[in-house]
Amino acid sequence: MDYPDVPYLVKLNSKTHLVKTTQKDPHSPLLVSVQDAIDLRDRTGLAIVAVGYTIYIGSEYEPEMMREAQQVILDAHRNGLLVVLWIYPRGSAVKDEKDPHLIAGAAGVAAALGADYVKVNAPKKEGEKSSMLLKEAVLAAGRTKVVCAGGSAIDEKKFLTELYDQIHTGGASGNATGRNIHQKDLAAAVRFTNAIFAITVEGAGVEEAWKIYTEGQDR
Amino acid sequence: MDYPDVPYLVKLNSKTHLVKTTQKDPHSPLLVSVQDAIDLRDRTGLAIVAVGYTIYIGSEYEPEMMREAQQVILDAHRNGLLVVLWIYPRGSAVKDEKDPHLIAGAAGVAAALGADYVKVNAPKKEGEKSSMLLKEAVLAAGRTKVVCAGGSAIDEKKFLTELYDQIHTGGASGNATGRNIHQKDLAAAVRFTNAIFAITVEGAGVEEAWKIYTEGQDR
Amino acid sequence: MDYPDVPYLVKLNSKTHLVKTTQKDPHSPLLVSVQDAIDLRDRTGLAIVAVGYTIYIGSEYEPEMMREAQQVILDAHRNGLLVVLWIYPRGSAVKDEKDPHLIAGAAGVAAALGADYVKVNAPKKEGEKSSMLLKEAVLAAGRTKVVCAGGSAIDEKKFLTELYDQIHTGGASGNATGRNIHQKDLAAAVRFTNAIFAITVEGAGVEEAWKIYTEGQDR
Amino acid sequence: MDYPDVPYLVKLNSKTHLVKTTQKDPHSPLLVSVQDAIDLRDRTGLAIVAVGYTIYIGSEYEPEMMREAQQVILDAHRNGLLVVLWIYPRGSAVKDEKDPHLIAGAAGVAAALGADYVKVNAPKKEGEKSSMLLKEAVLAAGRTKVVCAGGSAIDEKKFLTELYDQIHTGGASGNATGRNIHQKDLAAAVRFTNAIFAITVEGAGVEEAWKIYTEGQDR
Amino acid sequence: MDYPDVPYLVKLNSKTHLVKTTQKDPHSPLLVSVQDAIDLRDRTGLAIVAVGYTIYIGSEYEPEMMREAQQVILDAHRNGLLVVLWIYPRGSAVKDEKDPHLIAGAAGVAAALGADYVKVNAPKKEGEKSSMLLKEAVLAAGRTKVVCAGGSAIDEKKFLTELYDQIHTGGASGNATGRNIHQKDLAAAVRFTNAIFAITVEGAGVEEAWKIYTEGQDR
Repeated sequence: MDYPDVPYLVKLNSKTHLVKTTQKDPHSPLLVSVQDAIDLRDRTGLAIVAVGYTIYIGSEYEPEMMREAQQVILDAHRNGLLVVLWIYPRGSAVKDEKDPHLIAGAAGVAAALGADYVKVNAPKKEGEKSSMLLKEAVLAAGRTKVVCAGGSAIDEKKFLTELYDQIHTGGASGNATGRNIHQKDLAAAVRFTNAIFAITVEGAGVEEAWKIYTEGQDR
Repeated sequence: MDYPDVPYLVKLNSKTHLVKTTQKDPHSPLLVSVQDAIDLRDRTGLAIVAVGYTIYIGSEYEPEMMREAQQVILDAHRNGLLVVLWIYPRGSAVKDEKDPHLIAGAAGVAAALGADYVKVNAPKKEGEKSSMLLKEAVLAAGRTKVVCAGGSAIDEKKFLTELYDQIHTGGASGNATGRNIHQKDLAAAVRFTNAIFAITVEGAGVEEAWKIYTEGQDR
Repeated sequence: MDYPDVPYLVKLNSKTHLVKTTQKDPHSPLLVSVQDAIDLRDRTGLAIVAVGYTIYIGSEYEPEMMREAQQVILDAHRNGLLVVLWIYPRGSAVKDEKDPHLIAGAAGVAAALGADYVKVNAPKKEGEKSSMLLKEAVLAAGRTKVVCAGGSAIDEKKFLTELYDQIHTGGASGNATGRNIHQKDLAAAVRFTNAIFAITVEGAGVEEAWKIYTEGQDR
Repeated sequence: MDYPDVPYLVKLNSKTHLVKTTQKDPHSPLLVSVQDAIDLRDRTGLAIVAVGYTIYIGSEYEPEMMREAQQVILDAHRNGLLVVLWIYPRGSAVKDEKDPHLIAGAAGVAAALGADYVKVNAPKKEGEKSSMLLKEAVLAAGRTKVVCAGGSAIDEKKFLTELYDQIHTGGASGNATGRNIHQKDLAAAVRFTNAIFAITVEGAGVEEAWKIYTEGQDR
Repeated sequence: MDYPDVPYLVKLNSKTHLVKTTQKDPHSPLLVSVQDAIDLRDRTGLAIVAVGYTIYIGSEYEPEMMREAQQVILDAHRNGLLVVLWIYPRGSAVKDEKDPHLIAGAAGVAAALGADYVKVNAPKKEGEKSSMLLKEAVLAAGRTKVVCAGGSAIDEKKFLTELYDQIHTGGASGNATGRNIHQKDLAAAVRFTNAIFAITVEGAGVEEAWKIYTEGQDR
């Protein structure tokens, strides 16, 4: 409620990571419904424009999550909300969570379900460039836009370069950054967010974005 | 929405194949309801004329899928929609998924549930002709029409010959082709679709259909 | 729809026998509801007068089936429909499915649930006559009427004799015959049905019924 | 319907004992709802004044039964019906089903859920008198009244003595007798019921009750 | 009903501790709904101002409890009720239930779900002061207030000292005391409650509270 002008996405499911895949396959059912998100928007006036949901494909609970995701998409679209799916291959059946074909499969599932955006992990394969591998996922996603998970906190220059490559080589439509922003102090976080915005939305190159981050360029 | 004149079948359930039968028996619950399909038709004007659902008989989740399939058929028929069931014997209890008696049992289940069409795998038995074996399934299906799954991509002449035999020897009412069409380039895919149509709907022989495919006969 | 004058019983649950009890205890949930059966009757005008449901007592899924059976009985009786329960002891906890005490227990469950009829397997015990053993089940069934499953196809004279004994010694109210009728040609099936009818409903003896079957007596 | 003046308790759940605790923990879900019992009362005019439900605490299905029991109590009380809970510690986690502390715990659960009566097994401990041990359960039950299960059929004099002690030493409010009554012939069953009534409701001593039973005193 | 002026919190879920974590992970579903609590309030006029719910994070049933907790919070807040979550890390995946980071994680879950209060166990780590460790949980809880579980019955002076430290060092907003009060006689329980109130609400020090407890100061 402190930031009434910020557009919000309401994440509808979540879980702790205490129970590991070696013990039980991941399952993350709905905590709140699309209608709950709409009620929240209408009651508070917050700018809620999208909802999100995570599917772990390859989990023994995939059927439950796939069904909930599909229903979320139908409900959200009937109400004018965008949907972002987080899709991660995970479970005892999944040997390599970042296998490029599995990531592409995840993107294809999002397309089949009719998501607006799909957030996937950046694909990885020994000796290959991740942004090149991402192309397969972007093709599989069809009209669904692909964004890559920001991953663990890394060097900022490297981060911006990868982001640029994901967009300009891989065909991604942006990324989803968490720790690389919120583990910085406020001023640095704002500058880094501006740098990411410049690359993603304003067509900036890496050097330009780097300057925004390091020189605290006013915006 | 790009093809408003094409008659559509909405497949109501689906799954990835990441979790293998050796790990857990297959389960593919409804992702969308018959009502969701009707809503889609009414909202878009798309020519949705049928719905589909897969049952894995012999799976430990057979009861759940059998129940959903039965309810889908009741709902669809109350709303004037055709129903195609995909029925595959699969699970740790199933030793041979293409055993002719099991395929016939699958067809019989479709008849008992009241499906309009059942899609089965072509039966296989050492030293026997598949189209001959199919007769048992067609008999078991009663008034439900039988179509065979297209299977993996094969030589086109062989494909058309098998299709002809499935219809004229086995008593099938058509087939359900995927990879053999969509893994061709567009022009070849259109010609091959025309060839399949000629055999299935227009009573053409194999040679005539082959000519349609190879000579790009205009239609 | 071809036989609008035949009184029908709608069986509400069913399953394949692909998954064996050694793998998983039997479970056969409702495929259609009592209301679905009533809708069918009202829409078609078919003479639907009863519904049926199978419970596998001793299965790990007994609670689910017991509950559904009880609700089916309440719903059916509120709507003027008769209810036949098929009750078979089955599951890894059941050593002898035809133990006379277990069959009597099955009949007692049907009485406690308020079924109109219960279909049980004919009890069997080394050195005892099945029709004598059946008395215990008929007593346990109270006001619920007992019918025996017809079992595998056997010699017709033997069949009619057993039927006579089940009714006149065991106290059964009839039987439920499948394979012994539908695996005959139509003419023989009609004669055999007439013979069964004569014993069950008209008080005929075995020889009289046998004559009906063998001499094709007109009816 | 043959005994319209007898006040009835409708037992809402039940199960067979075919599946043993060594195979699977006990689970006994609702077969009929409180509303079903009320409908029965209103339709038939039977004097239905109470409902009953069994919880197996210590079973892996305790959460399901605890929840149903709680909802039964809320529904029954909203409709002016009394509730008796049968609570038995049972399951692979329970080493001694008649441990006095566990029996007291069972009584405490009934109190926490707001039951009017709780039926428990008489507590047992080597070298202790059961009616003395029962005091702990009666204290734990608070305002919920405690009745003991009648147990297996035993010598009548012993039965009446134990009943007297349960009430006058242990603080029980009565007992729940089955086999000790219904396995007698009708005349003896009536006399024995009268004897139990005399102790429980009329303040009779053991000898007086014994006389009622043995001398067939008219009532 | 004997204490109509006391503000009540209705605990919505609970369980026995008969089934241990070594046998099956803990699960404690809703016994009554928020609506049931509101009905109770409206029917009785009792001062019900809050509801409570326990989540065992790290249990295999975490998803079920997390979802119920979230829905409880939405329902309660729509109806003007406060919500206290009891959150305990527990299950075969949890090695140390009092690990300070896990306790902080529990507090963070409560914040994410929007609880008003979270009750956690006091964190413990070899060689560290619990009230210092608690700071991490209070930070993670954000706007959700933290109260510590009272734990097993201990020496009263020690209890009051720990409570003072939890509030003044750790940042807790109070505590949740059970056995340390209700296992005393009534007079001592009242004095001890007054002592706790003095520290928690009136800003008293340990010595002042101790005097209230030991000298039976009138209030």
